[in-house]
Amino acid sequence: MSKPRILVQLDCDSQPSVFDGVVAVDAGVDHLFRHAAVAPDQVRELVYGAIFTRGGEDLQSTALFVGGSDVAASEKLFEAVKKIFFGPMRVSVMLDPNGANTTAAAAVLLAAKHRELKGATALVLGGTGPVGSRVARLFAMEGANVRVGSRRKDRAEAVCEAIGKRTPAAALTALELDSDEVVVAALADAEIVIAAGAPGVELASEGARQASKSLEVAIDLSAVPPLGLAGIDAMDRANERDGMICYGAIGVGGTKMKIHKECIRQLFTANDLVFDAEEVYRVGQQLAG
Amino acid sequence: MSKPRILVQLDCDSQPSVFDGVVAVDAGVDHLFRHAAVAPDQVRELVYGAIFTRGGEDLQSTALFVGGSDVAASEKLFEAVKKIFFGPMRVSVMLDPNGANTTAAAAVLLAAKHRELKGATALVLGGTGPVGSRVARLFAMEGANVRVGSRRKDRAEAVCEAIGKRTPAAALTALELDSDEVVVAALADAEIVIAAGAPGVELASEGARQASKSLEVAIDLSAVPPLGLAGIDAMDRANERDGMICYGAIGVGGTKMKIHKECIRQLFTANDLVFDAEEVYRVGQQLAG
Amino acid sequence: MSKPRILVQLDCDSQPSVFDGVVAVDAGVDHLFRHAAVAPDQVRELVYGAIFTRGGEDLQSTALFVGGSDVAASEKLFEAVKKIFFGPMRVSVMLDPNGANTTAAAAVLLAAKHRELKGATALVLGGTGPVGSRVARLFAMEGANVRVGSRRKDRAEAVCEAIGKRTPAAALTALELDSDEVVVAALADAEIVIAAGAPGVELASEGARQASKSLEVAIDLSAVPPLGLAGIDAMDRANERDGMICYGAIGVGGTKMKIHKECIRQLFTANDLVFDAEEVYRVGQQLAG
Repeated sequence: MSKPRILVQLDCDSQPSVFDGVVAVDAGVDHLFRHAAVAPDQVRELVYGAIFTRGGEDLQSTALFVGGSDVAASEKLFEAVKKIFFGPMRVSVMLDPNGANTTAAAAVLLAAKHRELKGATALVLGGTGPVGSRVARLFAMEGANVRVGSRRKDRAEAVCEAIGKRTPAAALTALELDSDEVVVAALADAEIVIAAGAPGVELASEGARQASKSLEVAIDLSAVPPLGLAGIDAMDRANERDGMICYGAIGVGGTKMKIHKECIRQLFTANDLVFDAEEVYRVGQQLAG
Repeated sequence: MSKPRILVQLDCDSQPSVFDGVVAVDAGVDHLFRHAAVAPDQVRELVYGAIFTRGGEDLQSTALFVGGSDVAASEKLFEAVKKIFFGPMRVSVMLDPNGANTTAAAAVLLAAKHRELKGATALVLGGTGPVGSRVARLFAMEGANVRVGSRRKDRAEAVCEAIGKRTPAAALTALELDSDEVVVAALADAEIVIAAGAPGVELASEGARQASKSLEVAIDLSAVPPLGLAGIDAMDRANERDGMICYGAIGVGGTKMKIHKECIRQLFTANDLVFDAEEVYRVGQQLAG
Repeated sequence: MSKPRILVQLDCDSQPSVFDGVVAVDAGVDHLFRHAAVAPDQVRELVYGAIFTRGGEDLQSTALFVGGSDVAASEKLFEAVKKIFFGPMRVSVMLDPNGANTTAAAAVLLAAKHRELKGATALVLGGTGPVGSRVARLFAMEGANVRVGSRRKDRAEAVCEAIGKRTPAAALTALELDSDEVVVAALADAEIVIAAGAPGVELASEGARQASKSLEVAIDLSAVPPLGLAGIDAMDRANERDGMICYGAIGVGGTKMKIHKECIRQLFTANDLVFDAEEVYRVGQQLAG
């Protein structure tokens, strides 16, 4: 009989995420070890406790989840965790700070449902944030022509450079979106747009979106009005508006949640899985069938 | 099949209460998410995690418990929690800081077992503390003539005023108990007395209690000698002394515990229950049959 | 039906030990209440929550575990816990800071497998640290002639004095190990040597060990090279080297883990067990049959 499934939740925040905890329980975790305010120098002992306690087949019944609202801090923990592993002494680990990986994967998968990504032109508004930069990464991996939009061009260029290192063949353009006209132009010949900016900030006017003759899919990932893409409703779930398929944040949420749960389940199928954006996306693809 | 029951314990103290945790487990909670040192500004994310993770029927398998030894701080958390809920996006929540609600409910229910509360005169010693003020609230709700005793009249008056807002028809008297004679007079024509003062402080002498011709029930809620009502034993459980039914803190404890457990159980029967003193008392009434 | 087994983990560290948590789960604990950064003045409320919530037979389904990497701080917590108990109001408690008790018990039990302890001369290198001083305690309890080696004689003497109070009949010698010659002499007529010093510090050269004509068992408890006993491998598990039976830290680890788990299991068989080094060792003896 296999051992109880233990998920060690390493969270950067002063209170560990209840959201991630509930999802873990619903994914079948038997015991959740919740750690708050985890600092990189505390990771060693915590990971040792995970890898030195169970042997052989049982090792895969322990896994790690790294999260928290501070995405950069979570990423540092994730890197620290991976450095502790050695040889077969490792357990599976998933990174999903503030839901960034599962949200980005869900958004890109929903876009792919309606438009083949390979060769498509995809604009990412708010493309330098935690979710936006992951959306851009996934689009690039899937062979889309990616436009990374930001108010600051240097940041957009930095994101493009980082993605280029992961996917050398990627077609990437950094855009400084400092006026409605620039947005109109960026949308004019794009097939997909995903807005992943800060809550409560409109990134594209309704007119800018409607002016595009090529747009097929428009996805907004903000739940706080005004939304990033004016005219879209947070509840939209494949609703047609202005001749394009639209999704809002809540409409994407169901898919995100299914991917998150399935990832947690799969963590316990081996002791060497590492789930960052790309792997989370692959799990979502399996779910989509 | 319903989801595992998750209770999110929001505790003000630097270590979350083990007492509340054990009771939760014994009430059938499957997963306890324990949060210590919770501040009001952390409540939003924690509650979002509870209400945005499960849908439909499953939502009632998540609930919140607010506690801690600092009753005022816990009440602030409780208010903060209720403000986050909106429309159907809510889970059931119970407030029981330092056991104040369950203890007050148990004491008043035990008094009601031996004397009809409606029309009875009930003196509450230590009536301005967390337990005493709740005992007075419950007596008022049940139609007793309530005497709220305190060393400071302004505090007793403040408690009466607060209760009057909840129960406009309540018969309330604020008493400044600054001498044995005042206590003797307050007891002389009372049928019920409950002492809910600070541990180790005698609030009524044995003589004062014995001098009353009308007293039928005397309940002391302190476990640290000297007790609030001299001559009562902490183990008393419906013992007759001086012609009146007596209860001590430990004698009340069994009833308190049953009420606490049943409340936790009932939290999971709906997603919109709010258990403060009055609701906890109603649950206790159901148990008493 | 018995109540779910609750283990309250009181840990001195800022993050509670994952290691101790996984072992607890694998020993059949149903609910683990993990407390980090526990200070002695917080123990009272935590222990009250453990002893005042379940009655009769059910009380033994709650137990306490005291641990953490700071052994001295853990010992203070352990003492504080025991002082809170009174009469039958107690639950079983185990002390195992940084694994010191289970490691020391495992090492001494493995030595006893190959050489009768009574009358044997046993040298403990690093004999004043948390593990070493416990190894010396157990050897003394079992009637060995114990040599407590340290770089500082005053510390070695303090350990001998403390053991002498527990086991007045013990044969104890404090050794100041300030040169290879002293180590050679201390090993020359010893049958057992256990090295329990700081990680990465060699305490006996290979030559010193090989020069002994009497050594039968050599056990090293460090996992970080260079090991305390040169020439031993951390993976050694009853390997013969230079005519003596050798164990390394990882070779001892399996036995340590079995003892740790069995101790946790036994905690729930009564409500008054107190597991410090001696009791942990007795549990290990039962396992060894």
